[in-house]
Amino acid sequence: MWVVILKNFADRLLDKIDEVQNPSCIGLDPRIADIPSSIKREALEKFDNTFEAVSHAIYEFNKRIIDATCDIVGVYKPQMAFYEQYKGSGIEAFEKTVQHIKSKNCIVIEDAKRNDIKDTAQAYSDGHLGTVELCRGNHSSSLDVDAITVNAYLGSDCIKPFIENCKKFGKGIFILVKTSNPSSGEFQDIRMVDGKLNFVIMAENVNRWGEGTEGRRNYRSVGAVVGATYPQQAQIIRKIIPKVIFLVPGYGAQGGGAKDVMPCFNRDGYGAVVNSARGIIFAYQTDKYKTKEENFDKAAEASAADMKDDILKALKDAGIFPW
Amino acid sequence: MWVVILKNFADRLLDKIDEVQNPSCIGLDPRIADIPSSIKREALEKFDNTFEAVSHAIYEFNKRIIDATCDIVGVYKPQMAFYEQYKGSGIEAFEKTVQHIKSKNCIVIEDAKRNDIKDTAQAYSDGHLGTVELCRGNHSSSLDVDAITVNAYLGSDCIKPFIENCKKFGKGIFILVKTSNPSSGEFQDIRMVDGKLNFVIMAENVNRWGEGTEGRRNYRSVGAVVGATYPQQAQIIRKIIPKVIFLVPGYGAQGGGAKDVMPCFNRDGYGAVVNSARGIIFAYQTDKYKTKEENFDKAAEASAADMKDDILKALKDAGIFPW
Repeated sequence: MWVVILKNFADRLLDKIDEVQNPSCIGLDPRIADIPSSIKREALEKFDNTFEAVSHAIYEFNKRIIDATCDIVGVYKPQMAFYEQYKGSGIEAFEKTVQHIKSKNCIVIEDAKRNDIKDTAQAYSDGHLGTVELCRGNHSSSLDVDAITVNAYLGSDCIKPFIENCKKFGKGIFILVKTSNPSSGEFQDIRMVDGKLNFVIMAENVNRWGEGTEGRRNYRSVGAVVGATYPQQAQIIRKIIPKVIFLVPGYGAQGGGAKDVMPCFNRDGYGAVVNSARGIIFAYQTDKYKTKEENFDKAAEASAADMKDDILKALKDAGIFPW
Repeated sequence: MWVVILKNFADRLLDKIDEVQNPSCIGLDPRIADIPSSIKREALEKFDNTFEAVSHAIYEFNKRIIDATCDIVGVYKPQMAFYEQYKGSGIEAFEKTVQHIKSKNCIVIEDAKRNDIKDTAQAYSDGHLGTVELCRGNHSSSLDVDAITVNAYLGSDCIKPFIENCKKFGKGIFILVKTSNPSSGEFQDIRMVDGKLNFVIMAENVNRWGEGTEGRRNYRSVGAVVGATYPQQAQIIRKIIPKVIFLVPGYGAQGGGAKDVMPCFNRDGYGAVVNSARGIIFAYQTDKYKTKEENFDKAAEASAADMKDDILKALKDAGIFPW
């Protein structure tokens, strides 16, 4: 009899970050308009101007980005919107991308911001993190990512099915607390009658919900999304939920710098995964990394290496460099 | 030259409700465990025990439900979680279900509770409501549902791309205001420093965001999700946003009755679409409609007819029957 010991997600994530000595993450948001024409040309030859061609182009693009960067970073965050917008063909590109990331022993955080009421949350959780039922009544894994982002506007009964699967399958979730976009404050920063802000209430919920998901490194598999663009709010949240890992979008193209993300880390130099998407995958279009579009993967590699250096330097300057 | 005049979503929805004289909606949440074994047997014969078999079973089940009920109701709400959990195969079942609903001239509200920051919200909006870019740079429609449910925790810049596509393509959205689940109050019912509750702030946002989406019947294409299980809150929201159509889940299996949903309607007898899922599609499993499982569609038909009668009687009793 085989017994599979499932490793806690937070442990897996931190071990991978240690291996590459880099807490950054590459966002795989493959806008077809920005994918080099050489890749699209090949896809058109094989599949004509169809959704299958887009799927092929997206996967080929992602594969080359992953191959060029997987020695520098350990974590990838594909954004589901850019895949599911092409229906089943897009989901196939997502699936193949996930498999390729896993084949490099890297971690996949699916950015999908899913949620719904209890039974439906269970269906999302089973499909993305756990297993789903087949016609014969047996179960099979499906999208099988390492972690997924989750929206908790519906309260705790929508979070429970995700946390159960985190424990059962060694997976993780990141709950939206303070998002990186300009209008995030409209709702998240409103002050409650007891003086707390909405995002603080959400952070306290995340703290409560994540109890019991700690790994051997004392971090939890229930994390929080905290935008790089709001360092002051990050500082407040960091104090409320010390054991929680922050997924930090907004570095780079959205305007957040390495200094801005420092409040997301704990004094041990852990506790944050910093994401950049456009700034890396489409670096070949920027002045700094400008190159022939066929060499987009080299530009991504250079940009990913610079991002690593930038964050490590900031960790050193802040006196919290862990390696 | 052809000029396509796109009809406003709210007008299309209300016209359809008038046609069937029924403001109810059937939730297509096809849990494979509850689908009759005769359908699963046929799927297994054709596709073995694969995701394709599940996809086939789901579509066959939905098709028979739709065929049996499309003279009684005019609106269907497939819940995306139950489809996407089977990856591309599930999306195919969703797609075919949407096409079948449209072939019966009925309205499809996709329950997906999507959202993200600006560019990503645009990708969701384009994929579900609008058009997506292909490799040659031209655009094609994709999932092309009539309306989708949306989560607005991220504020107005995540809503804008959806509203633009509502206007451009004659589509609709329903924004989560007060959800039907037991824990919805944990976050949605917190009181702000100015005395308002969180869901009231959200309702006011919905009112602001929906300006300019009115059709000729003076209702808007930007609607709100308001659970049947919270009639008092519904009454408050109805007063804040009179021109907004409520999508009302929670009738039936979740415990909401016809009287509970009356506060969701305006005095003109319009303004709400009341959803029931399990109570109709799996009626064959209940004591009231118990039948041989091959006749599940007859049970669904009977349950849908009873739901219609129940709601129409309540509208009459409340003195707001519109027909």
